Amino acid sequence: MPRILFAAQDARWDQYQAPLTAALEEVGLTARLDCDTSDPATVDYMIYAPGGPVQDFTPFTGLKLVQNLWAGVEGIVGNDTLRVPLTRMVDTGLTEGMVEWCVGHVLRHHLGIDRMLATQNGDWRHFDFIPPLARDRKVTVVGLGALGAAVSEALVALNFQVRGYARRPKDIPGVESFSGDALHAALVGAEVVILLVPHTPATEGILDAGALACLAEGAVVLNPGRGGLVDDAALLAALDSGQVGHATLDTFRTEPLPPDDPYWSHPKVTVTPHIASETRPETAARVVVENIRRGEAGEPFLHLVDRQAGY
Amino acid sequence: MPRILFAAQDARWDQYQAPLTAALEEVGLTARLDCDTSDPATVDYMIYAPGGPVQDFTPFTGLKLVQNLWAGVEGIVGNDTLRVPLTRMVDTGLTEGMVEWCVGHVLRHHLGIDRMLATQNGDWRHFDFIPPLARDRKVTVVGLGALGAAVSEALVALNFQVRGYARRPKDIPGVESFSGDALHAALVGAEVVILLVPHTPATEGILDAGALACLAEGAVVLNPGRGGLVDDAALLAALDSGQVGHATLDTFRTEPLPPDDPYWSHPKVTVTPHIASETRPETAARVVVENIRRGEAGEPFLHLVDRQAGY
Repeated sequence: MPRILFAAQDARWDQYQAPLTAALEEVGLTARLDCDTSDPATVDYMIYAPGGPVQDFTPFTGLKLVQNLWAGVEGIVGNDTLRVPLTRMVDTGLTEGMVEWCVGHVLRHHLGIDRMLATQNGDWRHFDFIPPLARDRKVTVVGLGALGAAVSEALVALNFQVRGYARRPKDIPGVESFSGDALHAALVGAEVVILLVPHTPATEGILDAGALACLAEGAVVLNPGRGGLVDDAALLAALDSGQVGHATLDTFRTEPLPPDDPYWSHPKVTVTPHIASETRPETAARVVVENIRRGEAGEPFLHLVDRQAGY
Repeated sequence: MPRILFAAQDARWDQYQAPLTAALEEVGLTARLDCDTSDPATVDYMIYAPGGPVQDFTPFTGLKLVQNLWAGVEGIVGNDTLRVPLTRMVDTGLTEGMVEWCVGHVLRHHLGIDRMLATQNGDWRHFDFIPPLARDRKVTVVGLGALGAAVSEALVALNFQVRGYARRPKDIPGVESFSGDALHAALVGAEVVILLVPHTPATEGILDAGALACLAEGAVVLNPGRGGLVDDAALLAALDSGQVGHATLDTFRTEPLPPDDPYWSHPKVTVTPHIASETRPETAARVVVENIRRGEAGEPFLHLVDRQAGY
């Protein structure tokens, strides 16, 4: 009987125990599943999230797989004690939630909803509030993996002019694709930019002063990706100069975002508490169990991390 | 050379003169186009909007077509002096704008954006702000014509559970369709209802106390259709009781909405100034000219109004 260690924070165990048990039953797998870190050499599979009990993988000498609970693996990918396959979460619930957050905030800014809510005063200003059509609005999605591709497709379906940037060229219907060193070309004149690229040494602070200067004046920045993608000082300067009109940020270099962080009180910043990309226990548990089933059956794992590339 | 009378408010002429002239040139039609109401017997085609110079169509004895500038025809359909074909506007720009407004406000309420904007205070409340997925959210679209169908399809693409109601049964992929006397069945448990049905004697006050009582407690009402679809007293009572959590209204029985109307100051109401369904002059002018071209060529008109049905 395989042994599965759930190595994440206790609050996550409360969320995941029942869905994981149900998913194991669904595929007819009998396993020992718990949070018990004793006898590490007998653990076959580890379900991992940063902030849990395991930092050193060395004692887990029988380990076949570490399944990351989140899409982002920057909290584990550089751990030199990890010598076995690492897989990341590709969860339909996570993708759907991300699309909903991104499309919702793109439309919020596109339609000028904040200004409408803030100025409802009995004055009927029809001509002031007619937005352009989405077909005349330029949006750039930085990152065209599972999440970036899904967000791009949803925006194309709504007629936005979508450009996308990824390390390697991608072919997504309706999306003008940029890659390699063409990030700035992808950003020129963008009225909305969405950061969905993995956080790696190559993408650290990718939205810096140079990138921000490419955007249309008054552009909107959405960051549901990772806090480390943004040069925070450059973004605050661009907000203050008017080059950026608004930033809606879901991820930060330090989370929870400290109460005295300037983002909280900036009038042109919306803080959302890392909710865009929430993994959903019911769907995520099935992804985890599918990889364990594959391990037991000797089939290749899904969603393997390329540890050189960092994602 | 056919004579075309533009019979709408002067401000509309300023918007439409150039696009109409361009659209006529595009199809190679030579015509006299102006706002001159003299010699009514020589007018061949009339472009009409309520509030303009024409109320009595009797003197226009040579008229072949009245093309309404808007999608809604309730301002003309009951005019007994009109004896010639009446067509309504079906404009791609109008449809796109309507989809953007509806999807934007559905996602705004779905994601709880208002609450996020109102409570940004340095307190990181991750678990308070995770919304359900759209796949678990019930939306009902009342009216499945060109606009309602397009809105329904966009919501289905985002995984919302969409039910639709129309006078006659409709078949839209992914939409559970209701018709005839099944309005209440379409509304039971709905967390968002969107009114996009034409305003006719049969739909006057269709969202009344009985309909509102069918919705899920705390549901959201979106009315981008027509003010007359709502029983205003019933909606205000439902907002005050909590049966309706929020109403975002774009259309009203009196427009502009009078400054002392209770909707302006109600904490659970968002007023938008009839911007959801703005006809776009560039695309609308092509629709108008296509019908004039058809008239000159002896071909059937597009988007004819059924004057018995009222739309």
